[in-house]
Amino acid sequence: MELWYTEKQTERFGITAKIKRTLHTEKTEFQQLDMIETEEFGNMLVLDGMVMTTERDEFVYHEMVAHVPLFTHPNPKHVLVVGGGDGGVIREVLKHPSVEKATLVEIDGKVVEYSKKYLPTIAGALDDERVDVQIADGFMHIAQSEAEYDVIMVDSTEPVGPAVKLFEKGFYEGISKALKEDGVFVAQTDNPWFQEELIRTVYKDISEIFPITRVYTANIPTYPSGLWTFTIGSKKHDPLEVSDERFHEIDSKYYTKEIHTAAFALPKFVGDLLK
Amino acid sequence: MELWYTEKQTERFGITAKIKRTLHTEKTEFQQLDMIETEEFGNMLVLDGMVMTTERDEFVYHEMVAHVPLFTHPNPKHVLVVGGGDGGVIREVLKHPSVEKATLVEIDGKVVEYSKKYLPTIAGALDDERVDVQIADGFMHIAQSEAEYDVIMVDSTEPVGPAVKLFEKGFYEGISKALKEDGVFVAQTDNPWFQEELIRTVYKDISEIFPITRVYTANIPTYPSGLWTFTIGSKKHDPLEVSDERFHEIDSKYYTKEIHTAAFALPKFVGDLLK
Repeated sequence: MELWYTEKQTERFGITAKIKRTLHTEKTEFQQLDMIETEEFGNMLVLDGMVMTTERDEFVYHEMVAHVPLFTHPNPKHVLVVGGGDGGVIREVLKHPSVEKATLVEIDGKVVEYSKKYLPTIAGALDDERVDVQIADGFMHIAQSEAEYDVIMVDSTEPVGPAVKLFEKGFYEGISKALKEDGVFVAQTDNPWFQEELIRTVYKDISEIFPITRVYTANIPTYPSGLWTFTIGSKKHDPLEVSDERFHEIDSKYYTKEIHTAAFALPKFVGDLLK
Repeated sequence: MELWYTEKQTERFGITAKIKRTLHTEKTEFQQLDMIETEEFGNMLVLDGMVMTTERDEFVYHEMVAHVPLFTHPNPKHVLVVGGGDGGVIREVLKHPSVEKATLVEIDGKVVEYSKKYLPTIAGALDDERVDVQIADGFMHIAQSEAEYDVIMVDSTEPVGPAVKLFEKGFYEGISKALKEDGVFVAQTDNPWFQEELIRTVYKDISEIFPITRVYTANIPTYPSGLWTFTIGSKKHDPLEVSDERFHEIDSKYYTKEIHTAAFALPKFVGDLLK
Protein backbone atom coordinates (compact mmCIF):
# COMPACT_ATOMS: atom_id res chain seq x y z
CA MET A 1 0.00 0.00 0.00
CA GLU A 2 1.29 3.47 -0.88
CA LEU A 3 0.22 6.35 1.33
CA TRP A 4 0.48 9.91 0.06
CA TYR A 5 -0.25 13.15 1.92
CA THR A 6 -1.67 15.78 -0.38
CA GLU A 7 -1.99 19.43 0.60
CA LYS A 8 -4.18 21.62 -1.55
CA GLN A 9 -2.19 24.83 -1.23
CA THR A 10 -4.95 26.53 -3.18
CA GLU A 11 -8.29 25.08 -4.27
CA ARG A 12 -6.61 24.16 -7.54
CA PHE A 13 -2.98 23.29 -6.82
CA GLY A 14 -1.00 21.38 -4.26
CA ILE A 15 1.88 19.18 -3.23
CA THR A 16 1.87 15.47 -2.56
CA ALA A 17 4.35 13.54 -0.44
CA LYS A 18 4.77 9.80 0.00
CA ILE A 19 4.59 8.92 3.65
CA LYS A 20 5.78 6.05 5.76
CA ARG A 21 3.27 6.56 8.54
CA THR A 22 1.26 8.94 10.62
CA LEU A 23 3.08 9.61 13.87
CA HIS A 24 0.37 11.58 15.62
CA THR A 25 -2.97 13.14 14.83
CA GLU A 26 -5.03 15.24 17.20
CA LYS A 27 -7.59 17.99 17.27
CA THR A 28 -6.09 20.33 19.85
CA GLU A 29 -7.90 23.18 21.54
CA PHE A 30 -6.81 25.45 18.68
CA GLN A 31 -6.27 23.46 15.51
CA GLN A 32 -5.85 20.11 13.80
CA LEU A 33 -2.33 18.83 14.45
CA ASP A 34 -0.81 16.07 12.34
CA MET A 35 2.71 14.74 12.46
CA ILE A 36 3.67 12.47 9.58
CA GLU A 37 6.82 10.72 8.49
CA THR A 38 7.46 11.48 4.82
CA GLU A 39 10.02 9.76 2.64
CA GLU A 40 11.37 12.88 0.91
CA PHE A 41 11.29 15.49 3.67
CA GLY A 42 11.52 13.46 6.87
CA ASN A 43 9.09 14.18 9.69
CA MET A 44 6.56 16.86 8.83
CA LEU A 45 4.34 18.98 11.08
CA VAL A 46 0.98 19.86 9.57
CA LEU A 47 -1.43 22.32 11.22
CA ASP A 48 -4.97 22.71 9.90
CA GLY A 49 -3.89 20.93 6.74
CA MET A 50 -0.90 23.20 6.02
CA VAL A 51 2.72 22.10 6.15
CA MET A 52 4.44 24.04 8.92
CA THR A 53 7.86 22.51 8.85
CA THR A 54 9.76 19.42 7.74
CA GLU A 55 13.05 18.02 8.93
CA ARG A 56 14.65 18.41 5.53
CA ASP A 57 13.79 21.96 4.48
CA GLU A 58 13.08 23.66 7.83
CA PHE A 59 16.48 25.33 7.89
CA VAL A 60 15.54 27.79 5.16
CA TYR A 61 12.58 29.29 6.95
CA HIS A 62 14.10 29.27 10.41
CA GLU A 63 17.43 30.77 9.37
CA MET A 64 15.82 33.46 7.25
CA VAL A 65 13.29 34.51 9.90
CA ALA A 66 15.99 34.74 12.55
CA HIS A 67 19.25 35.93 11.06
CA VAL A 68 18.06 38.79 8.89
CA PRO A 69 16.58 40.83 11.80
CA LEU A 70 19.23 39.67 14.27
CA PHE A 71 22.07 40.90 12.08
CA THR A 72 20.09 44.07 11.38
CA HIS A 73 19.99 44.91 15.10
CA PRO A 74 23.47 45.81 16.37
CA ASN A 75 23.08 44.23 19.79
CA PRO A 76 19.99 42.07 20.25
CA LYS A 77 19.71 40.94 23.85
CA HIS A 78 16.07 40.15 24.46
CA VAL A 79 14.19 38.43 21.65
CA LEU A 80 10.53 37.45 21.42
CA VAL A 81 9.16 34.77 19.12
CA VAL A 82 5.37 34.78 18.69
CA GLY A 83 4.22 31.35 17.59
CA GLY A 84 7.04 29.11 16.45
CA GLY A 85 6.23 26.31 18.89
CA ASP A 86 8.35 23.87 16.89
CA GLY A 87 11.42 25.69 18.25
CA GLY A 88 13.26 26.19 14.95
CA VAL A 89 13.43 29.98 15.15
CA ILE A 90 14.61 29.78 18.76
CA ARG A 91 17.39 27.40 17.72
CA GLU A 92 18.65 29.99 15.23
CA VAL A 93 18.23 32.91 17.68
CA LEU A 94 20.50 31.17 20.17
CA LYS A 95 23.33 31.17 17.62
CA HIS A 96 23.73 34.91 18.28
CA PRO A 97 26.01 35.35 21.30
CA SER A 98 24.52 38.74 22.21
CA VAL A 99 21.15 37.16 22.98
CA GLU A 100 20.66 36.86 26.73
CA LYS A 101 17.03 35.82 26.75
CA ALA A 102 14.68 34.40 24.13
CA THR A 103 11.00 34.31 24.99
CA LEU A 104 8.67 32.05 23.02
CA VAL A 105 4.93 32.64 23.27
CA GLU A 106 3.08 29.79 21.59
CA ILE A 107 -0.68 29.49 21.95
CA ASP A 108 -0.82 25.73 21.47
CA GLY A 109 1.14 23.66 23.98
CA LYS A 110 0.55 20.59 21.86
CA VAL A 111 2.76 22.01 19.10
CA VAL A 112 5.64 22.27 21.56
CA GLU A 113 4.94 18.84 23.02
CA TYR A 114 4.86 16.96 19.72
CA SER A 115 7.69 18.92 18.16
CA LYS A 116 9.90 17.90 21.08
CA LYS A 117 8.84 14.30 20.55
CA TYR A 118 9.05 14.04 16.75
CA LEU A 119 11.22 16.97 15.62
CA PRO A 120 14.04 16.85 18.18
CA THR A 121 16.64 18.47 15.90
CA ILE A 122 14.31 21.45 15.60
CA ALA A 123 12.75 21.67 19.05
CA GLY A 124 15.78 20.72 21.11
CA ALA A 125 16.79 24.34 21.60
CA LEU A 126 13.64 24.99 23.64
CA ASP A 127 15.36 23.38 26.63
CA ASP A 128 18.22 25.91 26.59
CA GLU A 129 18.47 27.92 29.80
CA ARG A 130 18.23 31.23 27.95
CA VAL A 131 14.78 30.26 26.64
CA ASP A 132 11.51 31.10 28.36
CA VAL A 133 8.66 29.09 26.83
CA GLN A 134 5.21 30.47 27.58
CA ILE A 135 2.07 28.69 26.43
CA ALA A 136 -0.11 31.74 25.96
CA ASP A 137 -1.82 34.00 23.46
CA GLY A 138 0.84 35.97 21.57
CA PHE A 139 -1.63 38.70 20.74
CA MET A 140 -2.33 39.27 24.43
CA HIS A 141 1.36 39.03 25.31
CA ILE A 142 2.15 41.78 22.83
CA ALA A 143 -0.70 43.94 24.11
CA GLN A 144 0.77 43.74 27.61
CA SER A 145 4.41 44.41 26.68
CA GLU A 146 6.08 47.80 26.52
CA ALA A 147 9.59 48.69 25.33
CA GLU A 148 10.73 45.25 26.30
CA TYR A 149 12.24 43.58 23.26
CA ASP A 150 15.09 44.26 20.86
CA VAL A 151 13.77 41.93 18.19
CA ILE A 152 10.33 40.36 17.73
CA MET A 153 9.69 37.56 15.25
CA VAL A 154 6.19 36.51 14.28
CA ASP A 155 6.37 32.86 13.26
CA SER A 156 2.68 32.24 12.67
CA THR A 157 0.66 29.88 10.55
CA GLU A 158 -0.97 31.33 7.48
CA PRO A 159 -3.85 33.69 8.31
CA VAL A 160 -6.46 31.10 9.22
CA GLY A 161 -7.53 29.83 12.63
CA PRO A 162 -5.76 31.28 15.66
CA ALA A 163 -3.32 33.26 13.48
CA VAL A 164 -5.86 35.60 11.83
CA LYS A 165 -5.36 38.42 14.33
CA LEU A 166 -1.58 38.20 13.89
CA PHE A 167 -2.05 39.77 10.45
CA GLU A 168 -4.02 42.81 11.65
CA LYS A 169 -2.75 46.35 11.88
CA GLY A 170 -3.58 46.60 15.59
CA PHE A 171 -1.19 43.74 16.23
CA TYR A 172 1.65 45.52 14.43
CA GLU A 173 0.95 48.64 16.49
CA GLY A 174 1.25 46.50 19.59
CA ILE A 175 4.53 45.13 18.35
CA SER A 176 5.89 48.63 17.85
CA LYS A 177 4.98 49.42 21.46
CA ALA A 178 6.48 46.18 22.72
CA LEU A 179 9.80 46.93 21.03
CA LYS A 180 12.51 49.13 22.47
CA GLU A 181 13.23 52.41 20.72
CA ASP A 182 15.56 50.83 18.18
CA GLY A 183 13.70 47.53 17.88
CA VAL A 184 13.32 45.38 14.79
CA PHE A 185 10.44 43.07 13.94
CA VAL A 186 9.83 40.50 11.24
CA ALA A 187 6.78 38.51 10.21
CA GLN A 188 6.38 35.70 7.74
CA THR A 189 3.99 37.12 5.15
CA ASP A 190 3.11 34.19 2.89
CA ASN A 191 3.74 33.86 -0.85
CA PRO A 192 3.34 36.30 -3.73
CA TRP A 193 1.85 33.81 -6.22
CA PHE A 194 -1.37 33.03 -4.38
CA GLN A 195 -1.55 35.70 -1.65
CA GLU A 196 -0.94 38.98 -3.45
CA GLU A 197 -3.57 40.88 -1.49
CA LEU A 198 -2.25 39.76 1.88
CA ILE A 199 1.28 40.89 1.07
CA ARG A 200 0.05 44.23 -0.22
CA THR A 201 -2.12 44.90 2.84
CA VAL A 202 0.43 43.80 5.41
CA TYR A 203 3.16 45.88 3.77
CA LYS A 204 0.94 48.95 3.76
CA ASP A 205 -0.06 48.46 7.41
CA ILE A 206 3.50 47.91 8.63
CA SER A 207 4.91 50.81 6.62
CA GLU A 208 2.37 53.13 8.25
CA ILE A 209 3.76 52.19 11.66
CA PHE A 210 7.49 51.65 11.13
CA PRO A 211 9.87 54.16 9.51
CA ILE A 212 11.75 51.34 7.75
CA THR A 213 9.73 48.58 6.10
CA ARG A 214 11.27 46.02 3.76
CA VAL A 215 10.31 42.71 2.19
CA TYR A 216 12.63 39.81 1.48
CA THR A 217 12.19 36.30 0.14
CA ALA A 218 13.49 32.76 0.50
CA ASN A 219 12.87 29.48 -1.31
CA ILE A 220 11.01 26.88 0.74
CA PRO A 221 10.09 23.77 -1.28
CA THR A 222 7.19 22.58 0.88
CA TYR A 223 5.47 25.98 1.13
CA PRO A 224 2.96 27.18 -1.49
CA SER A 225 4.76 28.29 -4.67
CA GLY A 226 8.15 27.70 -3.06
CA LEU A 227 8.72 31.45 -2.79
CA TRP A 228 8.15 32.89 0.65
CA THR A 229 8.10 36.51 1.80
CA PHE A 230 9.07 38.06 5.09
CA THR A 231 8.31 41.66 6.03
CA ILE A 232 10.55 43.64 8.35
CA GLY A 233 9.42 46.67 10.31
CA SER A 234 12.25 48.56 11.97
CA LYS A 235 12.35 51.70 14.09
CA LYS A 236 15.93 52.69 13.37
CA HIS A 237 18.20 50.03 11.83
CA ASP A 238 18.01 49.33 8.11
CA PRO A 239 18.58 45.68 7.11
CA LEU A 240 20.25 46.96 3.94
CA GLU A 241 22.78 49.05 5.85
CA VAL A 242 24.47 46.45 8.01
CA SER A 243 28.17 47.17 8.02
CA ASP A 244 30.34 44.38 6.73
CA GLU A 245 32.24 43.81 9.95
CA ARG A 246 29.00 43.25 11.88
CA PHE A 247 28.41 39.93 10.18
CA HIS A 248 29.97 37.19 12.24
CA GLU A 249 30.35 33.59 11.17
CA ILE A 250 27.25 31.57 11.81
CA ASP A 251 26.48 27.90 11.40
CA SER A 252 23.96 27.92 8.55
CA LYS A 253 22.80 26.03 5.47
CA TYR A 254 20.92 28.81 3.66
CA TYR A 255 21.78 32.20 5.17
CA THR A 256 24.97 33.96 4.16
CA LYS A 257 26.06 37.58 4.34
CA GLU A 258 25.42 37.83 0.59
CA ILE A 259 21.98 36.23 0.85
CA HIS A 260 21.11 38.75 3.60
CA THR A 261 21.25 41.54 1.04
CA ALA A 262 20.28 39.63 -2.11
CA ALA A 263 17.06 38.38 -0.52
CA PHE A 264 15.73 41.97 -0.62
CA ALA A 265 16.07 42.14 -4.42
CA LEU A 266 12.50 41.28 -5.31
CA PRO A 267 11.24 39.75 -8.54
CA LYS A 268 9.54 42.57 -10.42
CA PHE A 269 6.00 41.25 -9.89
CA VAL A 270 6.64 41.06 -6.14
CA GLY A 271 8.06 44.56 -5.95
CA ASP A 272 5.04 45.80 -7.90
CA LEU A 273 2.74 44.50 -5.14
CA LEU A 274 4.25 46.99 -2.73
CA LYS A 275 3.74 50.09 -4.83
CA MET B 1 -15.88 14.77 -11.75
CA GLU B 2 -12.61 16.38 -10.61
CA LEU B 3 -9.53 15.74 -12.70
CA TRP B 4 -6.06 16.31 -11.24
CA TYR B 5 -2.70 16.04 -12.96
CA THR B 6 -0.02 14.79 -10.59
CA GLU B 7 3.67 14.93 -11.40
CA LYS B 8 5.98 12.87 -9.25
CA GLN B 9 8.96 15.20 -9.30
CA THR B 10 10.85 12.55 -7.40
CA GLU B 11 9.74 9.03 -6.54
CA ARG B 12 8.51 10.43 -3.26
CA PHE B 13 7.27 13.97 -3.84
CA GLY B 14 5.29 15.88 -6.42
CA ILE B 15 2.81 18.54 -7.39
CA THR B 16 -0.83 18.16 -8.27
CA ALA B 17 -2.94 20.52 -10.37
CA LYS B 18 -6.67 20.55 -10.96
CA ILE B 19 -7.35 20.47 -14.67
CA LYS B 20 -10.25 21.43 -16.88
CA ARG B 21 -9.35 19.14 -19.74
CA THR B 22 -6.63 17.51 -21.77
CA LEU B 23 -6.02 19.56 -24.90
CA HIS B 24 -3.67 17.18 -26.67
CA THR B 25 -1.78 13.99 -25.95
CA GLU B 26 0.64 12.29 -28.29
CA LYS B 27 3.66 10.03 -28.32
CA THR B 28 5.96 11.91 -30.70
CA GLU B 29 9.06 10.51 -32.32
CA PHE B 30 11.04 11.70 -29.31
CA GLN B 31 8.86 11.86 -26.24
CA GLN B 32 5.42 11.82 -24.67
CA LEU B 33 3.79 15.21 -25.24
CA ASP B 34 0.77 16.33 -23.22
CA MET B 35 -0.94 19.68 -23.23
CA ILE B 36 -3.44 20.25 -20.45
CA GLU B 37 -5.58 23.12 -19.31
CA THR B 38 -5.08 23.65 -15.57
CA GLU B 39 -7.15 25.90 -13.36
CA GLU B 40 -4.30 27.50 -11.44
CA PHE B 41 -1.58 27.84 -14.05
CA GLY B 42 -3.45 28.00 -17.35
CA ASN B 43 -2.34 25.80 -20.22
CA MET B 44 0.57 23.55 -19.33
CA LEU B 45 3.02 21.69 -21.57
CA VAL B 46 4.20 18.37 -20.17
CA LEU B 47 6.99 16.33 -21.80
CA ASP B 48 7.71 12.78 -20.61
CA GLY B 49 5.67 13.51 -17.51
CA MET B 50 7.56 16.68 -16.56
CA VAL B 51 6.06 20.17 -16.56
CA MET B 52 7.94 22.22 -19.15
CA THR B 53 6.02 25.44 -18.99
CA THR B 54 2.70 26.96 -17.97
CA GLU B 55 1.00 30.14 -19.08
CA ARG B 56 1.06 31.58 -15.60
CA ASP B 57 4.61 31.06 -14.41
CA GLU B 58 6.54 30.70 -17.70
CA PHE B 59 7.83 34.26 -17.50
CA VAL B 60 10.25 33.46 -14.70
CA TYR B 61 12.15 30.77 -16.53
CA HIS B 62 12.14 32.46 -19.92
CA GLU B 63 13.20 35.87 -18.63
CA MET B 64 15.94 34.45 -16.48
CA VAL B 65 17.39 32.20 -19.18
CA ALA B 66 17.46 35.04 -21.68
CA HIS B 67 18.19 38.33 -19.98
CA VAL B 68 21.07 37.35 -17.72
CA PRO B 69 23.40 36.25 -20.57
CA LEU B 70 22.08 38.89 -22.98
CA PHE B 71 22.87 41.73 -20.60
CA THR B 72 26.20 40.08 -19.83
CA HIS B 73 27.23 40.26 -23.49
CA PRO B 74 27.81 43.88 -24.57
CA ASN B 75 26.43 43.49 -28.07
CA PRO B 76 24.64 40.21 -28.79
CA LYS B 77 23.72 39.98 -32.46
CA HIS B 78 23.38 36.30 -33.26
CA VAL B 79 21.75 34.12 -30.64
CA LEU B 80 21.17 30.37 -30.62
CA VAL B 81 18.57 28.59 -28.53
CA VAL B 82 18.99 24.81 -28.27
CA GLY B 83 15.64 23.22 -27.41
CA GLY B 84 13.05 25.74 -26.28
CA GLY B 85 10.48 24.76 -28.90
CA ASP B 86 7.73 26.50 -26.93
CA GLY B 87 9.26 29.80 -28.05
CA GLY B 88 9.38 31.51 -24.67
CA VAL B 89 13.12 32.12 -24.65
CA ILE B 90 12.99 33.46 -28.19
CA ARG B 91 10.26 35.90 -27.16
CA GLU B 92 12.56 37.30 -24.49
CA VAL B 93 15.62 37.32 -26.79
CA LEU B 94 13.77 39.53 -29.25
CA LYS B 95 13.32 42.20 -26.59
CA HIS B 96 17.02 43.06 -27.03
CA PRO B 97 17.36 45.50 -29.91
CA SER B 98 20.93 44.44 -30.72
CA VAL B 99 19.77 40.95 -31.72
CA GLU B 100 19.71 40.61 -35.50
CA LYS B 101 19.10 36.91 -35.74
CA ALA B 102 17.81 34.28 -33.31
CA THR B 103 18.18 30.66 -34.33
CA LEU B 104 16.10 28.01 -32.61
CA VAL B 105 17.11 24.37 -32.98
CA GLU B 106 14.41 22.13 -31.53
CA ILE B 107 14.55 18.39 -32.06
CA ASP B 108 10.80 17.81 -31.81
CA GLY B 109 8.64 19.66 -34.33
CA LYS B 110 5.54 18.64 -32.41
CA VAL B 111 6.59 20.83 -29.49
CA VAL B 112 6.65 23.85 -31.79
CA GLU B 113 3.39 22.86 -33.45
CA TYR B 114 1.37 22.41 -30.28
CA SER B 115 2.95 25.36 -28.49
CA LYS B 116 1.82 27.59 -31.34
CA LYS B 117 -1.66 26.13 -31.05
CA TYR B 118 -2.12 26.11 -27.27
CA LEU B 119 0.48 28.54 -25.90
CA PRO B 120 0.18 31.45 -28.31
CA THR B 121 1.39 34.10 -25.84
CA ILE B 122 4.59 32.08 -25.48
CA ALA B 123 5.14 30.73 -28.99
CA GLY B 124 3.96 33.74 -30.98
CA ALA B 125 7.46 35.16 -31.23
CA LEU B 126 8.57 32.20 -33.36
CA ASP B 127 6.92 33.88 -36.34
CA ASP B 128 9.11 36.98 -36.05
CA GLU B 129 11.23 37.63 -39.13
CA ARG B 130 14.46 37.66 -37.12
CA VAL B 131 13.82 34.06 -36.01
CA ASP B 132 15.10 30.98 -37.83
CA VAL B 133 13.34 27.87 -36.54
CA GLN B 134 15.12 24.61 -37.38
CA ILE B 135 13.65 21.26 -36.47
CA ALA B 136 16.90 19.40 -35.95
CA ASP B 137 19.21 17.81 -33.39
CA GLY B 138 20.78 20.57 -31.30
CA PHE B 139 23.73 18.37 -30.41
CA MET B 140 24.57 17.93 -34.11
CA HIS B 141 23.95 21.60 -34.82
CA ILE B 142 26.47 22.56 -32.16
CA ALA B 143 29.01 20.04 -33.46
CA GLN B 144 28.82 21.65 -36.90
CA SER B 145 29.03 25.30 -35.77
CA GLU B 146 32.20 27.33 -35.37
CA ALA B 147 32.63 30.86 -34.00
CA GLU B 148 29.12 31.65 -35.08
CA TYR B 149 27.15 32.81 -32.05
CA ASP B 150 27.41 35.60 -29.49
CA VAL B 151 25.11 33.91 -27.02
CA ILE B 152 23.91 30.30 -26.80
CA MET B 153 21.09 29.22 -24.49
CA VAL B 154 20.38 25.58 -23.74
CA ASP B 155 16.70 25.31 -22.91
CA SER B 156 16.46 21.55 -22.53
CA THR B 157 14.23 19.20 -20.63
CA GLU B 158 15.68 17.56 -17.58
CA PRO B 159 18.40 15.01 -18.39
CA VAL B 160 16.16 12.17 -19.54
CA GLY B 161 15.19 11.15 -23.08
CA PRO B 162 16.59 13.21 -25.94
CA ALA B 163 18.18 15.72 -23.56
CA VAL B 164 20.69 13.39 -21.89
CA LYS B 165 23.56 14.32 -24.20
CA LEU B 166 22.89 18.02 -23.60
CA PHE B 167 24.35 17.56 -20.13
CA GLU B 168 27.64 15.98 -21.25
CA LYS B 169 31.04 17.64 -21.24
CA GLY B 170 31.55 17.05 -24.97
CA PHE B 171 28.47 19.13 -25.65
CA TYR B 172 29.83 22.05 -23.63
CA GLU B 173 33.12 21.81 -25.55
CA GLY B 174 31.12 22.04 -28.75
CA ILE B 175 29.32 25.09 -27.43
CA SER B 176 32.62 26.77 -26.69
CA LYS B 177 33.69 26.15 -30.29
CA ALA B 178 30.35 27.36 -31.66
CA LEU B 179 30.66 30.65 -29.76
CA LYS B 180 32.60 33.66 -30.96
CA GLU B 181 35.70 34.64 -29.01
CA ASP B 182 33.74 36.66 -26.46
CA GLY B 183 30.68 34.43 -26.42
CA VAL B 184 28.43 33.66 -23.46
CA PHE B 185 26.43 30.50 -22.86
CA VAL B 186 23.81 29.48 -20.34
CA ALA B 187 22.12 26.18 -19.56
CA GLN B 188 19.25 25.35 -17.28
CA THR B 189 20.79 23.02 -14.71
CA ASP B 190 17.88 21.69 -12.67
CA ASN B 191 17.30 22.09 -8.94
CA PRO B 192 19.62 21.81 -5.95
CA TRP B 193 17.21 19.94 -3.68
CA PHE B 194 16.86 16.75 -5.70
CA GLN B 195 19.67 16.98 -8.29
CA GLU B 196 22.76 17.85 -6.27
CA GLU B 197 25.06 15.54 -8.23
CA LEU B 198 23.96 16.91 -11.61
CA ILE B 199 24.65 20.50 -10.57
CA ARG B 200 28.04 19.57 -9.15
CA THR B 201 29.09 17.65 -12.28
CA VAL B 202 27.84 20.21 -14.79
CA TYR B 203 29.52 23.05 -12.92
CA LYS B 204 32.81 21.17 -12.84
CA ASP B 205 32.61 20.33 -16.55
CA ILE B 206 31.72 23.86 -17.62
CA SER B 207 34.36 25.47 -15.40
CA GLU B 208 37.03 23.28 -17.02
CA ILE B 209 36.09 24.74 -20.42
CA PHE B 210 35.12 28.37 -19.74
CA PRO B 211 37.28 30.91 -17.89
CA ILE B 212 34.18 32.40 -16.21
CA THR B 213 31.59 30.00 -14.78
CA ARG B 214 28.78 31.13 -12.52
CA VAL B 215 25.52 29.74 -11.19
CA TYR B 216 22.35 31.70 -10.52
CA THR B 217 18.84 30.80 -9.39
CA ALA B 218 15.20 31.72 -9.87
CA ASN B 219 11.92 30.66 -8.27
CA ILE B 220 9.63 28.63 -10.55
CA PRO B 221 6.56 27.29 -8.72
CA THR B 222 5.79 24.38 -11.10
CA TYR B 223 9.37 23.06 -11.24
CA PRO B 224 10.71 20.57 -8.70
CA SER B 225 11.48 22.28 -5.36
CA GLY B 226 10.58 25.68 -6.85
CA LEU B 227 14.26 26.67 -6.89
CA TRP B 228 15.93 26.44 -10.27
CA THR B 229 19.57 26.84 -11.21
CA PHE B 230 21.18 28.15 -14.38
CA THR B 231 24.87 27.83 -15.16
CA ILE B 232 26.71 30.40 -17.26
CA GLY B 233 29.93 29.70 -19.11
CA SER B 234 31.57 32.79 -20.54
CA LYS B 235 34.78 33.36 -22.48
CA LYS B 236 35.32 36.99 -21.55
CA HIS B 237 32.36 38.85 -20.05
CA ASP B 238 31.50 38.41 -16.39
CA PRO B 239 27.78 38.53 -15.56
CA LEU B 240 28.71 40.16 -12.25
CA GLU B 241 30.60 42.98 -13.93
CA VAL B 242 27.94 44.49 -16.13
CA SER B 243 28.23 48.25 -15.94
CA ASP B 244 25.16 50.05 -14.70
CA GLU B 245 24.53 52.03 -17.87
CA ARG B 246 24.43 48.86 -19.96
CA PHE B 247 21.12 47.80 -18.47
CA HIS B 248 18.32 49.18 -20.59
CA GLU B 249 14.65 49.11 -19.71
CA ILE B 250 13.01 45.85 -20.60
CA ASP B 251 9.44 44.65 -20.41
CA SER B 252 9.59 42.01 -17.67
CA LYS B 253 7.70 40.50 -14.76
CA TYR B 254 10.59 38.83 -12.90
CA TYR B 255 13.94 40.13 -14.18
CA THR B 256 15.28 43.45 -12.93
CA LYS B 257 18.76 44.92 -12.88
CA GLU B 258 18.90 44.14 -9.15
CA ILE B 259 17.71 40.55 -9.65
CA HIS B 260 20.43 40.11 -12.30
CA THR B 261 23.07 40.41 -9.60
CA ALA B 262 21.13 39.08 -6.60
CA ALA B 263 20.34 35.82 -8.41
CA PHE B 264 24.03 34.90 -8.17
CA ALA B 265 23.99 35.06 -4.37
CA LEU B 266 23.49 31.37 -3.68
CA PRO B 267 21.96 29.78 -0.60
CA LYS B 268 24.86 28.29 1.34
CA PHE B 269 23.96 24.67 0.58
CA VAL B 270 23.88 25.48 -3.15
CA GLY B 271 27.20 27.27 -3.10
CA ASP B 272 28.67 24.31 -1.21
CA LEU B 273 27.76 22.02 -4.13
CA LEU B 274 30.19 23.93 -6.33
CA LYS B 275 33.24 23.65 -4.09
